[in-house]
Order: sequence, then C-alpha cells, then structure tokens
Amino acid sequence: MASIFSKIVAGEIPSYKVAENDQFLAFLDVFPLKRGHTLVIPKKEVDSIFDLDEETYLGLMAFSKKVAAAIQRSISCNRISVHVIGLEVPHAHVHLIPINTMSDCDFSKTKLKLSAEEFTEIARSISGNMK
Amino acid sequence: MASIFSKIVAGEIPSYKVAENDQFLAFLDVFPLKRGHTLVIPKKEVDSIFDLDEETYLGLMAFSKKVAAAIQRSISCNRISVHVIGLEVPHAHVHLIPINTMSDCDFSKTKLKLSAEEFTEIARSISGNMK
Repeated sequence: MASIFSKIVAGEIPSYKVAENDQFLAFLDVFPLKRGHTLVIPKKEVDSIFDLDEETYLGLMAFSKKVAAAIQRSISCNRISVHVIGLEVPHAHVHLIPINTMSDCDFSKTKLKLSAEEFTEIARSISGNMK
Repeated sequence: MASIFSKIVAGEIPSYKVAENDQFLAFLDVFPLKRGHTLVIPKKEVDSIFDLDEETYLGLMAFSKKVAAAIQRSISCNRISVHVIGLEVPHAHVHLIPINTMSDCDFSKTKLKLSAEEFTEIARSISGNMK
C-alpha cells in the first residue's frame, strides 16, 4: 500500500507544498512543532533514509539545504534544525524546524494548531524564498 | 578561540573516536542519550552546517551515512536517528542515535552515565564495523 507521503506526491492527498522538483518534494508538516516546520521527502518510496541509493540520499540532503535556506529567509529564528527519526511514516523524510531553543524541536511537545489560511501563507512565503 | 570539537580534532582533548578521514571525524557523545550516540563533524570549524560549502556538507552527510551503518551493525536498535540542532557547540555536528522509540531521541532527557571502559568498548565495536 502506498505511504501517505506517496499519496501526497501523487496528489491524492492535499498538502501545503513549498518546493518540488523531479525527485524531491517539500511540504509543511500539518502537525508542526513550530511555524514553518517542513518535511522533505524523496518521491521514490523508500522506508529508511539510509536505504536510499547514494545519489538519491545526497540529492535529498542537497535539496533539504535549499529548503532550509528558504525557511530561514521566511521565518524569524536562530537555526533550522534537521531531524530524521523514521518511526512515524515508512517513507524517508527530513524534518526541518525553525528553532530558537532546544525545546522548540522537542517532538514530545504538543503540536501547533494552525488554520488552512495560516498554512497557505507560510507555504507561500517559503516557496517565494526558494532560490 | 577554537571550539571544543576543534580541540578534539587537534588531539588536545581526548575523545572516543569511531571513524576518521582527512575531512571528517566521528566520536562518541560523552553525554549520550543512548549507547552508541555518536557525533560526526567536519574537521574544518564552521558554526552552522548550512554554512559549510556544498562539497563539505555533502561529504559530511555521506560520511554520516557510513557511520550510521556501522552503529546499526554494532548496537541493537530499530533505527539510527539523525539530528542537527546547532545550539550547543558552535561547530557543525550531526548526532546519530540508535533508537527504538521516539523518546530515545528526546534531548530533554537525562543523559546516560557510562564508564570509560564502556565508552571504549562501544567505540571499538562501531569502529570495527566501519566498511
């Protein structure tokens, strides 16, 4: 069965896209720890990031760096933290989170609730800052 | 002033090394969340990972993948999680943590206390599993 992320790639499930190319897709996490919390995935469905072939793995990391720069230009924060945990959805994904303190990237914290308008505006801002 | 990690690279501060090449160094975090919690750094001192030049950044991620595979061969766990937070030491570093549950990579948790013998044995095991 296709992962929820493959369904997002296929357009069967809507998402707040921030960046996309042939191989990779970045979209807002709808259960964000912070405004601008973004997921970056390979379109190819592979469970563990370390099981990606070397080219796709490095391509994903290079694409994540570009998305992180766009988030940094959009959201006021100290750093963009990077997390690959891999226990939630069996489709490799990189979390990019704008943080000011360690607790901003504490995954045990209650997630933010944002409106569709807020998600749309954040995605538009980050997307507009992609170079 | 040189970062504590640059002092580790220079050998002025001891560390439990697990892997090394001309550009990168992997050593055990002495405040580990789990046994086998490893830090991977570029020897070049740059604060933010995203300020590394593209080649060094991708080299660091490729090296981290090899170290993660060695940790996976050494420590019984579900996944190796990856974290770049960047608020602790102003020298880019990748955390690799063997995890079974989300709480295993909760940075707010009390760190493990291991003996020098335990650290030495873990480092030797991971190092021996590098390919």
